Amino acid sequence: MALERIYDVVVIGAGPPGWTLSIRLVKNGMSVALVENELVGGECNYWACVPSKALLRPPEALTEASEVEGAKQAVHGQLSAESVFSRRNKFVDNWDDSNMKAMVEKKGVVVVRGLGHLDGPRRVIVSSKDDDITLVANKAVVLSTGTRATIPKVKGLTEAQPWTNRNATGAKKVPSSLAIMGDGPVGCEMAHAYSSLGTKVTLLSINDGILGRYEPFVGERLMEVFKRRGISVRTNVNVKEVERLNHKQDHPPLNITLDDGSTIAAQELLVAVGRTPNTDKIGLETVGLKPGDWLQVDDTCLVQAVEGDWLYALGDINHRALLTHIAKYQARVCATAIIERAHGTLTTSNSGGSKSGNSYEPWKKWVATADHAAVPQVIFTDPQIASVGFTEKGARSLDMNVRAVDYEMDAVIGALLHTDGYSGHARIIVDEDRHLIVGATMIGPQVGDLLHSATIAVIGEVPLERLWHAVPSFPTTSEVWVGLLENYGL
Amino acid sequence: MALERIYDVVVIGAGPPGWTLSIRLVKNGMSVALVENELVGGECNYWACVPSKALLRPPEALTEASEVEGAKQAVHGQLSAESVFSRRNKFVDNWDDSNMKAMVEKKGVVVVRGLGHLDGPRRVIVSSKDDDITLVANKAVVLSTGTRATIPKVKGLTEAQPWTNRNATGAKKVPSSLAIMGDGPVGCEMAHAYSSLGTKVTLLSINDGILGRYEPFVGERLMEVFKRRGISVRTNVNVKEVERLNHKQDHPPLNITLDDGSTIAAQELLVAVGRTPNTDKIGLETVGLKPGDWLQVDDTCLVQAVEGDWLYALGDINHRALLTHIAKYQARVCATAIIERAHGTLTTSNSGGSKSGNSYEPWKKWVATADHAAVPQVIFTDPQIASVGFTEKGARSLDMNVRAVDYEMDAVIGALLHTDGYSGHARIIVDEDRHLIVGATMIGPQVGDLLHSATIAVIGEVPLERLWHAVPSFPTTSEVWVGLLENYGL
Repeated sequence: MALERIYDVVVIGAGPPGWTLSIRLVKNGMSVALVENELVGGECNYWACVPSKALLRPPEALTEASEVEGAKQAVHGQLSAESVFSRRNKFVDNWDDSNMKAMVEKKGVVVVRGLGHLDGPRRVIVSSKDDDITLVANKAVVLSTGTRATIPKVKGLTEAQPWTNRNATGAKKVPSSLAIMGDGPVGCEMAHAYSSLGTKVTLLSINDGILGRYEPFVGERLMEVFKRRGISVRTNVNVKEVERLNHKQDHPPLNITLDDGSTIAAQELLVAVGRTPNTDKIGLETVGLKPGDWLQVDDTCLVQAVEGDWLYALGDINHRALLTHIAKYQARVCATAIIERAHGTLTTSNSGGSKSGNSYEPWKKWVATADHAAVPQVIFTDPQIASVGFTEKGARSLDMNVRAVDYEMDAVIGALLHTDGYSGHARIIVDEDRHLIVGATMIGPQVGDLLHSATIAVIGEVPLERLWHAVPSFPTTSEVWVGLLENYGL
Repeated sequence: MALERIYDVVVIGAGPPGWTLSIRLVKNGMSVALVENELVGGECNYWACVPSKALLRPPEALTEASEVEGAKQAVHGQLSAESVFSRRNKFVDNWDDSNMKAMVEKKGVVVVRGLGHLDGPRRVIVSSKDDDITLVANKAVVLSTGTRATIPKVKGLTEAQPWTNRNATGAKKVPSSLAIMGDGPVGCEMAHAYSSLGTKVTLLSINDGILGRYEPFVGERLMEVFKRRGISVRTNVNVKEVERLNHKQDHPPLNITLDDGSTIAAQELLVAVGRTPNTDKIGLETVGLKPGDWLQVDDTCLVQAVEGDWLYALGDINHRALLTHIAKYQARVCATAIIERAHGTLTTSNSGGSKSGNSYEPWKKWVATADHAAVPQVIFTDPQIASVGFTEKGARSLDMNVRAVDYEMDAVIGALLHTDGYSGHARIIVDEDRHLIVGATMIGPQVGDLLHSATIAVIGEVPLERLWHAVPSFPTTSEVWVGLLENYGL
């Protein structure tokens, strides 16, 4: 008979939400088993945010130095690809999770290696090559198994062994040419990273432009930058067929046929068109859910279609916002909800099947209110792109009475002092009924850390009249705020 | 008989508060004369913030590139002093104010060149080499004449022709050695700038450390950095005597005697021990004020000791916070106050001599509430130092029930990705009674633009429980906020 162990909470998936939640629960006196089939730290740490930012920062730092008179005279030569990769290797611990695992275990979390899957309510079986272990959860099972790159149905695509985010962030050599399917953040970041390393990059977008989910000026401006950098952007095209040519080479080049009949030759093809939830092999069928589905959750991250208050889903798989920081936020929220429910201070639960369980008071510590109000995101291209909350279009689609206010950031002295010839643009979305900011978008060098001022303004629901008194320091780029509020009419 | 002209408002001093206020008033239909004896744009534009940041950014950009593996392989050689100076020259328009003057005039402001001084209530005489002009102000006279470096009474100091901020920011050659009197922001910034250019710098502090007005960790950490960079910091010393040696050279070196009897040889000596208000020659005596005094103002910037509602003082000379951005904030506030008073919608005024006129409702558009609640400041050393609101000590001295919460920024992945070996520290001051943040201080690379998130939190009086939902993007340095709030106990 298989081994059976009992914990307060069993977590499947040790990515950012999994380990964040586990540590919080243990700190609050709960016993937690954290199940992981790959690396403790997850996609983000080893194959996404961390390595991509590690690849993107060296070209950014070098470009900035090259764009400041006085400093640029000391810049000679190119980025060292070898050193960029070795920097990346350091940040991903050479894809060895010993440090992460030790960190999590030191906090008191029990890490269980193997493939975890549900076996009915509150039961998880972990399969590993040695044995099966059954984990019984007293309080809750939390799913945080993340997503993987979607490989669309395109003739020859799978056989051609395309790159996903994993290959792109984990590459050990610089391809001479790279085609990219997808115009979202991953496609754009990798276009920039590999172009900086000398790769001839072609970005293929099925849309009119790139980054269509953001304010229009963002994609337009980044397209201009890409053009200047020699990145070819093909819009309104789809890939019809892919063939890995047989030139008797180790890794022969690809021939990519587009739906307009034209072809592109590229050494590699990165597929970055979307994400598929890792919910197909986790036993969802044993609790009445459909394998492979996204898992709809309420604001405490309880899975809405499952009766009771024991099954939660965090991060990518609940499809609220596929971002590490939102996943970690949900983990903080969900840990609180589990603790409050265990203490009996939070009693709302699902009636099963219905979707009633979302009547929480907003902004409580166990309610993921920001998922609706203010999801921030930074795209680490150069210039950086930062956004939070609603776009103008998004707000209008909800019939909100909003006004978009723009400011050209080259009018900010602090920005010009940062890099000669600074170019950037900022927009805030003002809710005219409530007289506060419900969204902000910026593009420009280093706007990533400027974003949090907007996030706090949105989350804090700080009225414009009060924001008027938040004085940005001279000469910082933050002075864009004065320009935005003046352009609003303050 | 001298020429007499009538305006709604006469402004003496065309620095940042002067021109900011003037433009706002003209936009609101008022006629404005802006009197300037030196350069339109003022101390900040030509001899302070702008040129100092212009000097400081090239070493910062180069250091950052040198601290990112992959980028650093392309950095060879030193900062080009010649190019750094030429960059600085560009930012100060070669000390030619034609552009600034044209910008201001284009907005409809009448610029009057010459030395402006009061000639009784609502009257200003402008003396220039050609003629005297009398300007009569219908509504208000606004003084914004700024400050100049204080030269303390030290034997031989004036005769030795020491540097002030003007010489330090305006230098055309790099001195081989530089002694600096003063451990405040100017002293520290110039120590860093000249050290980066190869100057042997000795910083002389009369205090136990440097930057004593800030949280203690700031000065301690910057001292360590200075030490590593070869900047000598001498604490608890005062300059007793200065002598410019007569070596029959063009510009012979200095011999500086300290009060402990030791001597320092330096090519130049920068005096940065404080500021003196430019109020000695502006006719204060004609309205019952004492020439040379700081001018105490109420929250609309009305000079408290003068009867009525016609005399305002903005910026450095009101001694509230000697910072360009606060001066510009006061200008925005004061312009609104002048307009509201002209419309009769704001009726509070001084009773003359008394200091009663400060009973304004806080946060109104014409009330400079941030002067008390949240003065932000960035010191552009590398690492940057950023602070807003109260220090722990400052809050306790007002008997506030506060708690200081700290976070070591090298635990932030986004920071480490920014520069290898990132080191930084952040502290927030929590008002335990109101459960919100009343101060924040950070030291670390590029924290300058991170500051505004704290400023909005302080100004917006956003409760900690709400701030908890303001999710910083991964992987940005802003994630320091999560660490701070977790360390608080959230």
